[in-house]
Amino acid sequence: MQPFALKKAFDNVHQTTPLVHCITNYVTVNDCANVLLGIGGSPIMSDEAADVVDIQTICGGLVLNIGTLNMRTIEGMKAAAACAAELGHPIVLDPVGAGASKLRTETASMLLDTYPISVVRGNMSEIKALAGAAYATRGVDVNPDDAVTPDNLLVSVEFARNFAQQSSAIVAITGAIDIVADAHTVYVISNGTPLMSKITGSGCMLTCVAAAYAVANPEARMDAVVAAVSAMGVSGEIAAARMRPGDGNGSFRMCLLDALSTLSADVLEENAHIEEC
Amino acid sequence: MQPFALKKAFDNVHQTTPLVHCITNYVTVNDCANVLLGIGGSPIMSDEAADVVDIQTICGGLVLNIGTLNMRTIEGMKAAAACAAELGHPIVLDPVGAGASKLRTETASMLLDTYPISVVRGNMSEIKALAGAAYATRGVDVNPDDAVTPDNLLVSVEFARNFAQQSSAIVAITGAIDIVADAHTVYVISNGTPLMSKITGSGCMLTCVAAAYAVANPEARMDAVVAAVSAMGVSGEIAAARMRPGDGNGSFRMCLLDALSTLSADVLEENAHIEEC
Amino acid sequence: MQPFALKKAFDNVHQTTPLVHCITNYVTVNDCANVLLGIGGSPIMSDEAADVVDIQTICGGLVLNIGTLNMRTIEGMKAAAACAAELGHPIVLDPVGAGASKLRTETASMLLDTYPISVVRGNMSEIKALAGAAYATRGVDVNPDDAVTPDNLLVSVEFARNFAQQSSAIVAITGAIDIVADAHTVYVISNGTPLMSKITGSGCMLTCVAAAYAVANPEARMDAVVAAVSAMGVSGEIAAARMRPGDGNGSFRMCLLDALSTLSADVLEENAHIEEC
Repeated sequence: MQPFALKKAFDNVHQTTPLVHCITNYVTVNDCANVLLGIGGSPIMSDEAADVVDIQTICGGLVLNIGTLNMRTIEGMKAAAACAAELGHPIVLDPVGAGASKLRTETASMLLDTYPISVVRGNMSEIKALAGAAYATRGVDVNPDDAVTPDNLLVSVEFARNFAQQSSAIVAITGAIDIVADAHTVYVISNGTPLMSKITGSGCMLTCVAAAYAVANPEARMDAVVAAVSAMGVSGEIAAARMRPGDGNGSFRMCLLDALSTLSADVLEENAHIEEC
Repeated sequence: MQPFALKKAFDNVHQTTPLVHCITNYVTVNDCANVLLGIGGSPIMSDEAADVVDIQTICGGLVLNIGTLNMRTIEGMKAAAACAAELGHPIVLDPVGAGASKLRTETASMLLDTYPISVVRGNMSEIKALAGAAYATRGVDVNPDDAVTPDNLLVSVEFARNFAQQSSAIVAITGAIDIVADAHTVYVISNGTPLMSKITGSGCMLTCVAAAYAVANPEARMDAVVAAVSAMGVSGEIAAARMRPGDGNGSFRMCLLDALSTLSADVLEENAHIEEC
Repeated sequence: MQPFALKKAFDNVHQTTPLVHCITNYVTVNDCANVLLGIGGSPIMSDEAADVVDIQTICGGLVLNIGTLNMRTIEGMKAAAACAAELGHPIVLDPVGAGASKLRTETASMLLDTYPISVVRGNMSEIKALAGAAYATRGVDVNPDDAVTPDNLLVSVEFARNFAQQSSAIVAITGAIDIVADAHTVYVISNGTPLMSKITGSGCMLTCVAAAYAVANPEARMDAVVAAVSAMGVSGEIAAARMRPGDGNGSFRMCLLDALSTLSADVLEENAHIEEC
């Protein structure tokens, strides 16, 4: 990926203030809202079916995060997704806990199968669960290892590419090593810090960042997602570098928000580790 | 406004620990609870119709914030508001996103029309939407500019005064310049910092602060709201002054909570910029 | 309690990463999740009846916190509790606001009466309400003073012991002085700081910590709860010691999360003030 694309994706967010409608869990929703404001976007949270169409209509994109889904909010997700689809707005799906319960796996699969999801962002276990559910209905069995490591990187990259092809979505599989794939291209991003797994919401926040970048970069959604993933990772590194003796995950959470909201395009470019596979 | 009234309003909160029942959005609810504790009040969150009457009965006032409203919580708001009305408790309405959706505009208007709302706190767009909806039913059309600036201050003041007269509520229109009006008097408050718009919840928090002040100052609700608005603004300034290199909206949020919870009546008095129009 | 037991309870949490399913209020849920991660556990939040059985099945224990209960989540609590009971998982009940409303008192009592609750964690007013409700149905009237003080410590200890006997649960009554009792033994823990009452969620967080400790120490649940209560208190002291001029409840909240996530078994042992009564 060209440095140019990274900077351009970043600048487009700051110049257009993308308005992102989030239907997301109540655990990390405050961090999601603050991150969207911090990176130069603007959040609106609305999950009631009777409210979401009006809200999606004034926004540029939609986040569907199933972290604390319930029957009522699933209806909200469906109504919002149908509206986003009609308006051509990008939809970013975060299948939190897919694989951990039938309701989550089925809801995430239903959303992916029914609506034109632009981006799916999850950890490898969640994407595997989603792939398994999807593939099962197509008689295909997949079972890649869960965590992406240097040892299984090649097979993970192929898995991501296949998932992207099958789902027609950009997939971001994030963890110690991040993989972003569409049907044609796969990028591996090596940024971040293990501290990101010691707070709740790193993934949810990234999903929102990816949505803002996707909204602001309609002509280059793949570049947008790669830029979002590396912006999150670089911000994590900056936050980790600010930790002092006695600091724990409370401080790290605050420093991560700080880093995301003060990140510059130049610092992003200098520190992003992105490789095409 | 006399310095005396400001200090007295502040002291009454600290001396009486006003108990505020909040039906509010799940995005900023944690900040709302911490702010209420920080300023010397006490929060209880309860949104279920079967629970709210008992809770409102032991409290001194009610916050209705429609930020993530749904059909169930609207029923909770109605039951709680009816109870607060019967008990003579102040009700503070925060019409989050009024104008952005039909459900929000109509719910906020319904609450304002049906119950004896004491205070409405919103940004100019929200209050405009509420005024438009209310006036439409009365055949009156209003269209003031959105953001309050020195250039449109006079017309904004008149709009606020009219809204207060029409609604029989104190209205607090907050932004770079804050306006607090009842049917008789209008105050303009010039405190705060642009950083307050870079975190989620500045408005929601202020609504809760205003409710605590209103509960603690039953004989002087207008003074109470003016004191609350300037306490928020002065706290924002204190928080901004504590920001260091590398700090972003994560730190600002924390510093704002810190400032609100350590504010003294003297510092409030010295720094409040309040003018009667 | 032997220092050995404290250290062992602590180490068991860090070595087994207890997975705790929380049905909890939306006010403090983010802090609960971060605290569980910080102390070496892992949180999953899920409150929908159709989701909770699958989730509880993959977890080791359950938190039922009624802070913002509603009719839908009460169904979730019942389904999750029935599943936890069947699987022999510890259930920790936090009766937030019991006594403040009929719905809360009755729901907490119903949960305590119907399911094999392992631990009840609340303040004295909540436990009194629960005892009153339970005893009322048994024709027994209790009315101890609310706050535990040196003056009423003996009667409070007896109240706790009786409650533990009646409920067959370990009870943790927390405040300035903490009491942990089962049917046989009562411990008094003198750790903590008044600052813990100036933030929302100290109690909710402790409930989650107690659940993680209970899951990780199946052979020694009483030791586990005592260790959890003292870990929270010692962390509060460490957080208070880090406060600087200008810091308020925003900083204290962060420092508390920091202290919980960096606490060592040695520091816990050195600073825990635990007495058997």
